[in-house]
Amino acid sequence: MITILIDRSGDADYIYHQIYQKIKEEIFNRNLLPDNKLPSKRELAKALNVSINSVNAAYQQLLAEGYLYSKERKGFFVEQIETFHASRHSEPLRLDAELAEEAEKGGGWISFSHMNVDTTHFPFKTWLRCEQKAVASHTSELGEMTHPQGVYGVRQTIARFIALTRGVKCHPEQIVISAGTQPLIHTLQDLLPESALYAMEEPGYSRIYQLLKNENKRVATIELDHKGVRISDIQALNPDVLFVTPSHQFPTGIIMPVSRRIQLLNWVSDGEDRYIVEDDYDSEFKYGSDTIPALQSLDRSEKVIYIGTFSKSLLPGLRISYMVLPQKLLKRYRKRHHFSIQTSSVLTQFALQEFIESGEYQKHIKKMNQIYEEKRTRLIESLENTFAHRLKIKGASAGLHFVADFETNHSEEEVLRRAGERRVEIYGMNRFILNGKKEKQPGVVSLVLGFAKIGMKQIDDGVAKLYEAVCG
Amino acid sequence: MITILIDRSGDADYIYHQIYQKIKEEIFNRNLLPDNKLPSKRELAKALNVSINSVNAAYQQLLAEGYLYSKERKGFFVEQIETFHASRHSEPLRLDAELAEEAEKGGGWISFSHMNVDTTHFPFKTWLRCEQKAVASHTSELGEMTHPQGVYGVRQTIARFIALTRGVKCHPEQIVISAGTQPLIHTLQDLLPESALYAMEEPGYSRIYQLLKNENKRVATIELDHKGVRISDIQALNPDVLFVTPSHQFPTGIIMPVSRRIQLLNWVSDGEDRYIVEDDYDSEFKYGSDTIPALQSLDRSEKVIYIGTFSKSLLPGLRISYMVLPQKLLKRYRKRHHFSIQTSSVLTQFALQEFIESGEYQKHIKKMNQIYEEKRTRLIESLENTFAHRLKIKGASAGLHFVADFETNHSEEEVLRRAGERRVEIYGMNRFILNGKKEKQPGVVSLVLGFAKIGMKQIDDGVAKLYEAVCG
Repeated sequence: MITILIDRSGDADYIYHQIYQKIKEEIFNRNLLPDNKLPSKRELAKALNVSINSVNAAYQQLLAEGYLYSKERKGFFVEQIETFHASRHSEPLRLDAELAEEAEKGGGWISFSHMNVDTTHFPFKTWLRCEQKAVASHTSELGEMTHPQGVYGVRQTIARFIALTRGVKCHPEQIVISAGTQPLIHTLQDLLPESALYAMEEPGYSRIYQLLKNENKRVATIELDHKGVRISDIQALNPDVLFVTPSHQFPTGIIMPVSRRIQLLNWVSDGEDRYIVEDDYDSEFKYGSDTIPALQSLDRSEKVIYIGTFSKSLLPGLRISYMVLPQKLLKRYRKRHHFSIQTSSVLTQFALQEFIESGEYQKHIKKMNQIYEEKRTRLIESLENTFAHRLKIKGASAGLHFVADFETNHSEEEVLRRAGERRVEIYGMNRFILNGKKEKQPGVVSLVLGFAKIGMKQIDDGVAKLYEAVCG
Repeated sequence: MITILIDRSGDADYIYHQIYQKIKEEIFNRNLLPDNKLPSKRELAKALNVSINSVNAAYQQLLAEGYLYSKERKGFFVEQIETFHASRHSEPLRLDAELAEEAEKGGGWISFSHMNVDTTHFPFKTWLRCEQKAVASHTSELGEMTHPQGVYGVRQTIARFIALTRGVKCHPEQIVISAGTQPLIHTLQDLLPESALYAMEEPGYSRIYQLLKNENKRVATIELDHKGVRISDIQALNPDVLFVTPSHQFPTGIIMPVSRRIQLLNWVSDGEDRYIVEDDYDSEFKYGSDTIPALQSLDRSEKVIYIGTFSKSLLPGLRISYMVLPQKLLKRYRKRHHFSIQTSSVLTQFALQEFIESGEYQKHIKKMNQIYEEKRTRLIESLENTFAHRLKIKGASAGLHFVADFETNHSEEEVLRRAGERRVEIYGMNRFILNGKKEKQPGVVSLVLGFAKIGMKQIDDGVAKLYEAVCG
């Protein structure tokens, strides 16, 4: 008979589970051997002074998991089970110290990160109301798999909307929604030839560069002049795919003038398999004049792949981006990705549709454009007052960041470390030098200053701490 | 002087925008040539009988976009702009008929899809309340980029939870959250050797098979016996990575007994770079006895990569899955994916944390377990009453689907077509035959019957239509 000490205290495990656990242990410890017969339910129940139901539940679970087998009218027997080759511990293996994370980096930080947005003015109530409406109107669809490209109705809304605001002309069929630009680029490279040569702006968006490198793609970089990527370098390199951020070059902030745009479109339309990827990551925000229409709006040969996102205009954490595929690539997509599962939340998609169609989106953009313009102006004033001639501000009056050169005796690395010590979050230009050839202009450090998240009242304090980091 | 007919009707475009558009057109049409001087703002305003402000806004926008340049005290001039090589149309290119989608497939369908879940019992109100709490507690974090692996606190919650419910033991550091199993597999293959041989269950989950094929991976399949993947075939094939669904084999519904589990663990621990991927896709639902602990719970050599999802237990459209990486792979992940952006919505992550920590998740699972068990029982009764000896039901009493063999004179393709004509959504076994060698058992068709979405009152109707499709 098996000896089981049943714990009958209030906070103990269920009795059936104690029996189940004990028998499992005895099997693993080889105290119960293959084909050993177990006591009948009645016997064991009596011996342990528990109900037959408890013993039955334990035996049934052990049966379901394959520890026991039963023979009709004969009872329960232990299964043939191998011994473990590896030694068994009951605790998870200890975590390597180098892998440990801190739960939080702590409060009190002032953020000049270009990646963040202002959440204090986000209309969360309205957003949640849109979700509520989405739930009411689309209950059944929320329990189904949506189309790999995203909900068709949502794609209709996006197509109409980007025609209006960005001049992008496309059919909803051409839109592929996704949980971010990275998965879109991953999908895109799968539609292009294996050996394609990719060209990116230098400096540029390092996360895409690294992604392509990780996927073993050939990637080159092209230097910028004051109009954006140099056309002569493009012609010399002759890439198959060119990544650009014409509305607001990332990170330098150059707006590509129409003359360079037409040069690019002429270059791309001269090669059968050439494409331009237009990453329109923060075009919603333009101060002093209207937004600049997308490069895609001038493209009539279906050679521009337009990528848009709601990460800057709404929240980065909502994870909703999209691309507009030329029909030739869409045909390949349909063949190769019919099995792909849409990654962006369907609830978020429906809520976004409601948010746009009700006019709340445009209202939000208008409000944020004003708030961000004020923050930008205020930050530049504060920087100029503090740094005076030691500062040179670059980039157009647009987006959620600008670049500034600071005169300093420290290296960029030192400035960033010193800023971190003062709990100031800021990024340096070297982060965006893709080919690794970091330019060293002695006595000058270039920083990327995001102004979206910082509070109006934090600006002077942040700039003062930055001054200590740069000039101290 | 430029002639512009200003439309002053109520629904016309802003006046500045009409001027801007007209000048742009004239530049593209070569009526205004590079270096042509434009009329002064005052002149044009007078000529058009509009305010100087309107002309100024138009000129500023054209300046910002690079159509014009200005010389101090001399005025505005047309920029040097190339002509377009490609012909310009103002409308988007027509959509190829083969690419067109229908907005909706229409109502009135009865779904036996294994992919859907029941939304009529989903606690949407509670979920939205959890989102509201998440917004209130984490406003600032919603405007930031989270850790590539997902929010640390949410990973802590998941780690505690799967220890409790699945016996999975891990540190939060080992968890990688993602917007689905597909992106997780994509990340995972990047951590494993380029030339690794993958083995999948046959029949099995075709979406992962196709993904690996798309990524040019070597993939083989392993047939099942009544305990799951055949151990002798694994030893003969000697794969580097083995995919299994031990809790409820997809799609056959076999529960892998502990004897086979230990054989697999012994096999995997005998090879330094071998791994098992455990896809625990619907283990929350088990009828008649408790859920079966995860294979990972028996693994003490860190050789099992556990994958979990909330697609079945909550909603497929929420897009939140996760994997538990052995530390060796986690080290590679940290090196190669520090630039990766988390794909699952941060708002969803925080809401899920609240939903789990408040006990609502367990409550929901308990309720759904009962509802799904009732549906399953009712569906089997209805099938048995209708098909009698022409039916054989397979698979364990678990999950959200089972497989059934039907005697019929039709082929599977015909049965599915005939079901579709009757607005019955159902999938056949051939969909899950990965190596393409579809078994032809004459006179028998195997169907995968999902019972999650169908309403109790639809069951008899659905089964009657299925009878027409199979036996009609």
